[in-house]
Amino acid sequence: MKPIGTNRRVLLWAMVMLATLSEMLLALPALAQTGALSSWNDGSAKRAILEFVRSTTDQSNPNYVLPEDRISVFDQDGTLWVEHPMYTQVVYCLDRVPAVVAQKPQLKNIEPFKTVLAGNQEAIAKLSTQDLEKILNATMTGMSVEEFQIEARKWLETAKHPRWNRSYTELVYQPMLEVLQYLRDNAYRTYIVTGGGQDFVRVYAEKVYGIPPEQVVGTAQGTKFGYDKNGKPFLTRDPKLLLNDNNAGKPEGIHLMIGQRPYAAFGNSTGDREMLEYTGAGAGARLRMLVLHDDATREYAYGPAQRLPDTKVGTFTPALYEEAKKDGWTVISIKNDWKRIFAFD
Amino acid sequence: MKPIGTNRRVLLWAMVMLATLSEMLLALPALAQTGALSSWNDGSAKRAILEFVRSTTDQSNPNYVLPEDRISVFDQDGTLWVEHPMYTQVVYCLDRVPAVVAQKPQLKNIEPFKTVLAGNQEAIAKLSTQDLEKILNATMTGMSVEEFQIEARKWLETAKHPRWNRSYTELVYQPMLEVLQYLRDNAYRTYIVTGGGQDFVRVYAEKVYGIPPEQVVGTAQGTKFGYDKNGKPFLTRDPKLLLNDNNAGKPEGIHLMIGQRPYAAFGNSTGDREMLEYTGAGAGARLRMLVLHDDATREYAYGPAQRLPDTKVGTFTPALYEEAKKDGWTVISIKNDWKRIFAFD
Repeated sequence: MKPIGTNRRVLLWAMVMLATLSEMLLALPALAQTGALSSWNDGSAKRAILEFVRSTTDQSNPNYVLPEDRISVFDQDGTLWVEHPMYTQVVYCLDRVPAVVAQKPQLKNIEPFKTVLAGNQEAIAKLSTQDLEKILNATMTGMSVEEFQIEARKWLETAKHPRWNRSYTELVYQPMLEVLQYLRDNAYRTYIVTGGGQDFVRVYAEKVYGIPPEQVVGTAQGTKFGYDKNGKPFLTRDPKLLLNDNNAGKPEGIHLMIGQRPYAAFGNSTGDREMLEYTGAGAGARLRMLVLHDDATREYAYGPAQRLPDTKVGTFTPALYEEAKKDGWTVISIKNDWKRIFAFD
Repeated sequence: MKPIGTNRRVLLWAMVMLATLSEMLLALPALAQTGALSSWNDGSAKRAILEFVRSTTDQSNPNYVLPEDRISVFDQDGTLWVEHPMYTQVVYCLDRVPAVVAQKPQLKNIEPFKTVLAGNQEAIAKLSTQDLEKILNATMTGMSVEEFQIEARKWLETAKHPRWNRSYTELVYQPMLEVLQYLRDNAYRTYIVTGGGQDFVRVYAEKVYGIPPEQVVGTAQGTKFGYDKNGKPFLTRDPKLLLNDNNAGKPEGIHLMIGQRPYAAFGNSTGDREMLEYTGAGAGARLRMLVLHDDATREYAYGPAQRLPDTKVGTFTPALYEEAKKDGWTVISIKNDWKRIFAFD
């Protein structure tokens, strides 16, 4: 028998020690978690999150969930970051219009491009959904997936939110970043399930939320496979809508892209209702949370808190509020539950 | 200052030791990997896999790939498990016909159901693609997603392959299971990208391949969200085709569901061509492999090795073989590269 070499001996010893230490660490109370959710005030919302994680990760608890089944889903606009006064993606599309018209001058005098080019904010705010779709298709399709990524990334690096004069990617809610991290620390996979464009969100989700592209589910247009003149294959973004990831489209999109019912769902508007209901229809402990925008000073107040005039975003209706109360969903009050809203606060 | 308690001290010590040991382990050559790919003969195929992983996981190598970008994709039928004499999912659908007709007797005398019920294997083998689609829709849609999962799981537990008289889930290629594990051990995520039904494969992929539902991309039909009579929400399987995950549909499906270009792709037929091309069009080291079925004794010989009469599966054409050779894809010869084919060998 050959003597075991030094490297081999060190390795064996290290493996035994690692196993032993891992067990010791697991057996101790998770002290590192004391600092979790530090931007949350003590209250029913914070307690609901802690209690959900405690009961679903404790093997002796009847609500224990196997690590492979730990799926959580998050709406984005109004749930993970600011959605007022306009969805960030809509701002992007409007900002792209001049560049698109420069390439296709025939659009210059055609609506809705004419209105956007004129820059009349009041008229732009009144554009219909059909008009916005035309702008979306003109600015987000027809190019390769890589070209789109480059354009969107470039825009995100320079564009600023009018109120805070900061990048849109800075306007993410610090308490929600802590929830994402806390769930991941407890072996939950964290998915974004957004009504916004899947590929737009994928451009920044990893950097901003720690969520990789494959864990972003959103409204999705198709792509078309083809070859360039050198025979190199590439994908072109296509206007064909594959998934409208709003309302009933959210649970349908979850089934398509994840294939499992989530144990936790976070939303803030009627577009998230079906996702929250679907999450709650499973057995065992299910966490369903709704962000209520009730802080006009630090962010915005809308929905049941105060209806903003002419708002097209975040329709948190009284009926949704009633359903939440009746069915035991937890409402997160920005005003009362969040110590701070942004990392820069 | 409060003295640090025993638990806290043990924890701190353990954390420091863990960090140190983890670094030592990473610095040592991966001895545990010596046993990887043990069902592979030494040869160009095994070497291509080892070399790809070595170069893309070594930080000092120009082809190093960040862990978050490590995506690998695998066709299923004929690449991970046996596809002859008929795709397993087609066998499932045919077997389900009597139960469907029992619920809908009006189908009894209508084609193609009449032919299937008569049990004439020769006539069944000649059914057109349109006929098979009718059978697929009748047997795989109209029920809730949970009902479908229960039925498919039950069938898989009892159905046997006619040649080996073993469960279909035992007819997975042991060398490919080792590749999946080896890639995962090196921080690659392993995805199935199949022309087969996404939800069918999801029923067994975790148990059989260690691949969770969210990492199965396949031909996908839609679902419809609704409520039962008690107001409980559920999803019904819908005949509407969302993604035909064959040929150009494979890279399109990869973009939809994963959102990143893979670094490694495994296939065995012309249906995998575009996926392999798309994988290869990225920069750096890319692994593209084609399984060649050339072992009539231990499995089957078809494609360039030997054309089976009237085969509807696994069309590995001479043109595909030529493209593979020209573009540096690696062909896996079952006969020469695999020491054993199944775990039970």
